[in-house]
Amino acid sequence: MEFAECFPIWPRLTPAEQKSLSGSVVCQTVKKGAILQNQNEECTGLLLVRSGQLRAYIVSDEGREITVYRLLDMDLCLFSASCMLRSVLFELTIEAEKDTEFWLIPAEVYKRLMEQSAPLANYTNEIMAARFSEVMWLMEQILWQSFDKRLAAFLLEEMSLEKTGALKTTHERIANHLGTAREVVTRMLRYFQSEGLVRLSRGMIEIADEAGVRALCGG
Amino acid sequence: MEFAECFPIWPRLTPAEQKSLSGSVVCQTVKKGAILQNQNEECTGLLLVRSGQLRAYIVSDEGREITVYRLLDMDLCLFSASCMLRSVLFELTIEAEKDTEFWLIPAEVYKRLMEQSAPLANYTNEIMAARFSEVMWLMEQILWQSFDKRLAAFLLEEMSLEKTGALKTTHERIANHLGTAREVVTRMLRYFQSEGLVRLSRGMIEIADEAGVRALCGG
Repeated sequence: MEFAECFPIWPRLTPAEQKSLSGSVVCQTVKKGAILQNQNEECTGLLLVRSGQLRAYIVSDEGREITVYRLLDMDLCLFSASCMLRSVLFELTIEAEKDTEFWLIPAEVYKRLMEQSAPLANYTNEIMAARFSEVMWLMEQILWQSFDKRLAAFLLEEMSLEKTGALKTTHERIANHLGTAREVVTRMLRYFQSEGLVRLSRGMIEIADEAGVRALCGG
Repeated sequence: MEFAECFPIWPRLTPAEQKSLSGSVVCQTVKKGAILQNQNEECTGLLLVRSGQLRAYIVSDEGREITVYRLLDMDLCLFSASCMLRSVLFELTIEAEKDTEFWLIPAEVYKRLMEQSAPLANYTNEIMAARFSEVMWLMEQILWQSFDKRLAAFLLEEMSLEKTGALKTTHERIANHLGTAREVVTRMLRYFQSEGLVRLSRGMIEIADEAGVRALCGG
C-alpha cells in the first residue's frame, strides 16, 4: 500500500500539492511500547497509520493516565502536530500499543498545504470533529457512567481489538486506560470474577461470559 | 458594529463570498434563559455573538448537566451547526445566560463557502481546536481536580463575568455548570462559609475572602 492509497483526500489535491506531500512523507516502523510523541516534546508531525495500533493519552501532574483515543490502520493523528494549530493548548502522549508502521508527514509541509487547499483543510476539520466526538463521548462516560459499565465496555473493546477473549494485560495498564487507580480495577475485576463474568490469572483476564459482560454495558 | 467587523476572517474572503455571507446572516436577539439550540433539534446555524453570553452544555439521560464552554462577545458557535460536519456525533444545548444579540449564519451557506475557501476552512479549524482545548481542560479538571478547587475556580470565573463579588445564583444552577448534584455544591459552599471564604444567603453567594478563594484554586 502506497501513501497515496491510504490518504483519503489524495485525489482532491493538485498535482503540485501531491508532489510536495509525497516528497516529504517518510515511512517509519516502531516497536510496541515506543513513545512517538511526548507531551513536552516538539512537534513530531502528522502520523498516518499504515498498520499497527497507537494510543493517545493524557497524564496528570501525579502521573495518572487516561486513554483519549486510539488510532488503527489508516487513521491520521493530528495532535502529534499540534504546533500546526495555534489554538491547541493540550498535550497528548502517543504510544505504540503494537508494532506500528506509519507515514510521518512534517507539520510545516502539511500546514502550508492546508493553508492553500480547501479540500485538505476541510478534511482536517472532519478528522478533528471525529476526535472531538470521541472526547465528548469519553467525558460523558466519566461523568455519568458507573465504573462497572466502563470496565465492561473496555474489556469488550480489547477483545475486539485483540481478536481473543484471553487478554494479556495488567490491572495497572487498564487503570491507565480508564483514568483510575489500579486498586479500583482490581476490586471491580474480582467482583466480575465472583459473578462469573471473567476468570483472572497472572497477567491474564479471560472473558468467561461474554453475553453477561455485554448485558452489563448495555444495561 | 456590523457583521463584517465582528467576523475576523472577513477581509480574507472574496467579494462574492462576502456578498453570499452578508446576504444570508440575520441579526437576532434573545432573552436570558432562552434555549437557542436543543440537543435533539435540527441544525440552527452558526451563532456569532454580538453581545451577551451563551452557555453550551450537555445533558445526561437522567437530566444532569455540565457546562462545556461559554461564548462571549465576538465568539462563534460552531456546534449549533453540527449538521455541517458529518463527524460531529455529540449533542450540545445552547442557552442564553444573559440577554444576547447574535448573528445567525445558515449552516448550508457556511458549509458551501467553507468547501471552497481555504481561509474559512482554516479559521473553522482554529475555532474547533480552541473548543477542543477547552473540553480537554474540563476533562482534566473532572478527572484530576478535587471538587473544592473546581468550585473555587468557578466562583472566580463568575465574579469576573458578572463583575461583582455578590453572585445571584442557586446551588442547583452551580451543580448544572459543574456536572454534579446540588447537595454536593451545598455541602462545599457551607464548608467555604465556615472557612470564611464566602457568605451565603437566599439566592446569593458573596465572596468574602477573594485571596483565600484564589489560594484554594492555585494550591
